[in-house]
Amino acid sequence: MKHEYVPSQYFRTIGSHPAAYEVTAGEQIRVHCIDAHGIDGHDVQVCAPGNPMSGPIAINGIQAGDVLAVTFAQIIPLRTHGWSYPTLAGNVVDPEYVPHLPHQPGTALPKEYWDYDPAQQTLRSRGTFGQVLTLPYEPMVGCFGVAPDRGEAISTATSAAHGGNMDYRHFTTGCTIYLPVFVDQALFHIGDGHLRQGCGEIGGTGVESAIAVDLHFAKAPMARIQWIRAEDAQYLYAVGNARPLDQALQHATSEMHRFLQDCGADTHTAAVLMSQAIEYDIGNVFDPAYTVACKIRKEYLASHGLRSSFRNTMG
Amino acid sequence: MKHEYVPSQYFRTIGSHPAAYEVTAGEQIRVHCIDAHGIDGHDVQVCAPGNPMSGPIAINGIQAGDVLAVTFAQIIPLRTHGWSYPTLAGNVVDPEYVPHLPHQPGTALPKEYWDYDPAQQTLRSRGTFGQVLTLPYEPMVGCFGVAPDRGEAISTATSAAHGGNMDYRHFTTGCTIYLPVFVDQALFHIGDGHLRQGCGEIGGTGVESAIAVDLHFAKAPMARIQWIRAEDAQYLYAVGNARPLDQALQHATSEMHRFLQDCGADTHTAAVLMSQAIEYDIGNVFDPAYTVACKIRKEYLASHGLRSSFRNTMG
Amino acid sequence: MKHEYVPSQYFRTIGSHPAAYEVTAGEQIRVHCIDAHGIDGHDVQVCAPGNPMSGPIAINGIQAGDVLAVTFAQIIPLRTHGWSYPTLAGNVVDPEYVPHLPHQPGTALPKEYWDYDPAQQTLRSRGTFGQVLTLPYEPMVGCFGVAPDRGEAISTATSAAHGGNMDYRHFTTGCTIYLPVFVDQALFHIGDGHLRQGCGEIGGTGVESAIAVDLHFAKAPMARIQWIRAEDAQYLYAVGNARPLDQALQHATSEMHRFLQDCGADTHTAAVLMSQAIEYDIGNVFDPAYTVACKIRKEYLASHGLRSSFRNTMG
Amino acid sequence: MKHEYVPSQYFRTIGSHPAAYEVTAGEQIRVHCIDAHGIDGHDVQVCAPGNPMSGPIAINGIQAGDVLAVTFAQIIPLRTHGWSYPTLAGNVVDPEYVPHLPHQPGTALPKEYWDYDPAQQTLRSRGTFGQVLTLPYEPMVGCFGVAPDRGEAISTATSAAHGGNMDYRHFTTGCTIYLPVFVDQALFHIGDGHLRQGCGEIGGTGVESAIAVDLHFAKAPMARIQWIRAEDAQYLYAVGNARPLDQALQHATSEMHRFLQDCGADTHTAAVLMSQAIEYDIGNVFDPAYTVACKIRKEYLASHGLRSSFRNTMG
Repeated sequence: MKHEYVPSQYFRTIGSHPAAYEVTAGEQIRVHCIDAHGIDGHDVQVCAPGNPMSGPIAINGIQAGDVLAVTFAQIIPLRTHGWSYPTLAGNVVDPEYVPHLPHQPGTALPKEYWDYDPAQQTLRSRGTFGQVLTLPYEPMVGCFGVAPDRGEAISTATSAAHGGNMDYRHFTTGCTIYLPVFVDQALFHIGDGHLRQGCGEIGGTGVESAIAVDLHFAKAPMARIQWIRAEDAQYLYAVGNARPLDQALQHATSEMHRFLQDCGADTHTAAVLMSQAIEYDIGNVFDPAYTVACKIRKEYLASHGLRSSFRNTMG
Repeated sequence: MKHEYVPSQYFRTIGSHPAAYEVTAGEQIRVHCIDAHGIDGHDVQVCAPGNPMSGPIAINGIQAGDVLAVTFAQIIPLRTHGWSYPTLAGNVVDPEYVPHLPHQPGTALPKEYWDYDPAQQTLRSRGTFGQVLTLPYEPMVGCFGVAPDRGEAISTATSAAHGGNMDYRHFTTGCTIYLPVFVDQALFHIGDGHLRQGCGEIGGTGVESAIAVDLHFAKAPMARIQWIRAEDAQYLYAVGNARPLDQALQHATSEMHRFLQDCGADTHTAAVLMSQAIEYDIGNVFDPAYTVACKIRKEYLASHGLRSSFRNTMG
Repeated sequence: MKHEYVPSQYFRTIGSHPAAYEVTAGEQIRVHCIDAHGIDGHDVQVCAPGNPMSGPIAINGIQAGDVLAVTFAQIIPLRTHGWSYPTLAGNVVDPEYVPHLPHQPGTALPKEYWDYDPAQQTLRSRGTFGQVLTLPYEPMVGCFGVAPDRGEAISTATSAAHGGNMDYRHFTTGCTIYLPVFVDQALFHIGDGHLRQGCGEIGGTGVESAIAVDLHFAKAPMARIQWIRAEDAQYLYAVGNARPLDQALQHATSEMHRFLQDCGADTHTAAVLMSQAIEYDIGNVFDPAYTVACKIRKEYLASHGLRSSFRNTMG
Repeated sequence: MKHEYVPSQYFRTIGSHPAAYEVTAGEQIRVHCIDAHGIDGHDVQVCAPGNPMSGPIAINGIQAGDVLAVTFAQIIPLRTHGWSYPTLAGNVVDPEYVPHLPHQPGTALPKEYWDYDPAQQTLRSRGTFGQVLTLPYEPMVGCFGVAPDRGEAISTATSAAHGGNMDYRHFTTGCTIYLPVFVDQALFHIGDGHLRQGCGEIGGTGVESAIAVDLHFAKAPMARIQWIRAEDAQYLYAVGNARPLDQALQHATSEMHRFLQDCGADTHTAAVLMSQAIEYDIGNVFDPAYTVACKIRKEYLASHGLRSSFRNTMG
């Protein structure tokens, strides 16, 4: 790959920081990312905890008002282990169930470590807290986004229209994400790699590790969007970030209705089809803003003569 | 089948109404249900709209404090068509997007009809509102439950710990649902058949039709539960009903943590596994109470020596 | 007073139960109520806990579709003491603050007793948990309502359009409450007396006691309402019951906009005035449904030639 | 006054921007502020709309980790008129009521103007939308705060722990606000003056105008706080900013429980007193984050020997 970016500094906000690396729309780049606690692939703490981001990457050919398409071509683990918290967050259970959690919210949490087995493509917990568990290796990117509007610098603990800490398990290899662009060159940030994560990130972490991500950038053939969209082999997605869940879902559902109209559906067709065919995923229900994805199978669009992909015409 | 129940009256609350039919735990029964608007399989309106229920069915051998297992053995459509609303509900989109919906909330809504093709196993809309659409036939039961606690009679518009109008698309053929029992004989109600439905029931309806459901009742080998649990071939489920979504999710997540302990996991193992392996579905985000399901693949339990089914030991 | 009703049985749902006492619109009645735990004025437990209601009282001259006006003419304590829980509810604090509460949610709670001093018009806690505290005696009625629609019998733990467990401190002496009527004779229930309560009932109780309430019933000169309205010397109120708070507030705000139009304001005037003049109270943020009141000073209506009371024309 | 600051530039985020003016703890300063749309006291648009802030003001003697006390000594209108929107926001009414609002959400809104009468101390609307209305002049400051943690620059549309767009009508003359300080010199921002506002800012605006504010800064005698606290002649306040309302209330309630312990109450006393004596106000229910204040009368603290003010010992 022509471009490989190994950061020497990190940001804990996504904002209009000075560009750390520059590419051009149509190009690929491999970006190295440390984990959510600032620990790199050699187990060295190189930065304070709190989702430190690699970037910003400035993308020539992308301007404010455009939609940026970012494809995750490959996710490469930079360590053979990751860690997770061995409890559930206080806000994902009933208030009266909080005293029954294995660790109380608001206290310092220990880490359960997981080992990555490349041959089996599995993660195996060490069983420090409870049984040894073996689950499939399914890496994903927890946090990424572009510089937000009006000069904001938004903490990487949270998310909004610009992206951020969405912790959505389907933001993984093979996914193309469409982001609204607020500043020229977009200023893309990325980090918070997970070797796996359940829906909702309900323990407050995935299996946290350092990763490298191969990214492909393009200008999407799409007019202004209000919330992040995405596609992979099977689905189109519209993603809302807000608290409470109800509002994140409202954002995602409104955006999907607009998205389907961009696919050629009239307003009635979009509504009738959504009513009977959409699915929702909960990205995270832990961070200050929650993430809800509204998705629809591409086959339901293609079979009705509607556009089902926006990737084929991109550079 | 020994038992077949064709009601002559219906209830629009789930409560301690006089038993309409009596069976014994271990038996099967076929129950006929009219649609959500009170229209039967012959297109005759036999009851006022509002999710009229067939039942209550009294189950001998089930007592207050037990857990009732109900298996949906088969769902049979009683009409070759169903109907849905051709818009999205006001509460599932952003307030400022409401004016862009094809029909305004609070107004009388027309119906889009869908025809069922048994050969293709599809539903085909008539295209009165937008394009003709063809989607898979995937029938489900929108509303069912047992008589609630303390003598309540709860509207079938909504749901709570006793069940009710959950509108969850995975409550379908092959699913066994575990309900907390509050009164002797449980007093089971059922109705609101859908020939298909997207997640969330975001238009306010599935494809509404009259159906018959073959049910099998048993006493579940489970101590007191707080929220509905379920299992099918692939998943174990814990289901929370409440508004907002956040609280429905808290109920479901708390119940899953208890469920996994009933499967043999210790509190840490249950939390670590849930963190990295659960999935959420949104049953409905339309009714007065919303429904969220927290589910986990049975294979993740079985592979770790945990119990993954409660069906095998039932009568 | 002509009518005095001392119940011999109580209901823990508000529903279409057989009338326990009958009056006619325009009449007054004194109703005796036991406390939320079923304990009467002689400290005898006469009923299971859970907000047992006195009633239903059938009111001749009131029909389904009418609006019932109930005035609380006087509240009389039937004991010289009351009790409250000495902690805060889990759902009113941050999840991570739950471990810092003096008692954990989900555990059995002890009671702090308070003595009523009629001379000083104060309540004085006994200081079993923390300091002795002295606060003004400000009695109120926690739970009341009419039989709901479609045959529902709704738990007195919660509230809805029919009233119920609203726990709103301004439902007190001198207040006239307007309730939508769903069944002939309205079937009014009342109970859950508090000698005082902070906003939100955030500990789960007011100062709970047995009380008698002098009620005056009338047919309100008002067309169909969707949510409870009220008035006292200073304010007009619109009250929404729902969870979350956001939805309770939406109900209350919508109803106030309709209320002001019944007062003679056009839609713009109502909106402009509300924007700059309404106040919100949180009735309770503890029960399954929360209660929010939207209120406006009567003087702001009268000074603009708008109707500011609906009491003067009632029988 | 020694210090008077008339800005020549404005920020639409609250962040670690270069200090625009410098004072020392213990000093007063008069700060001029333009209105929410960037219009100054001469009706000249000097900045883009969106709550442009005056500042940041650097306060010598205040360091990260301190608590900053800001007293609003005086609010001076810089125009004799203000403006408001003549409708209600879409999110404060039921979704099905949205079509009944005088203007639809998401559309460009006209302005209703109000004239300030210094003699009468009133505001009088011009009646362009509905009737002419006269309401008391009750000026307040909609948006102020200190530079947030971890280098964030947060939009002045919203609010968080650092303050921001709280739109709380009791942040007015005579109020002392206690803010957590995240960076040395605090970097205080202020703007968004309202000549009056109802609770909730439910139309999306108060009566918006340019104002000057006389501020007094001091180091508060208080250890680290998590959410803003305040006091005026009658009340102590704890203020939570979040969406939904439920979470804003949780923040405020948790902070009040801590605040009362700083006043000398033990955990039980704080809980029992709060249960029976606190009141809630809704600051705003319009902005991306909502604001809820939990308040308690100072007399209830003083009468029990608890500290009821933190102003007397400040420089």
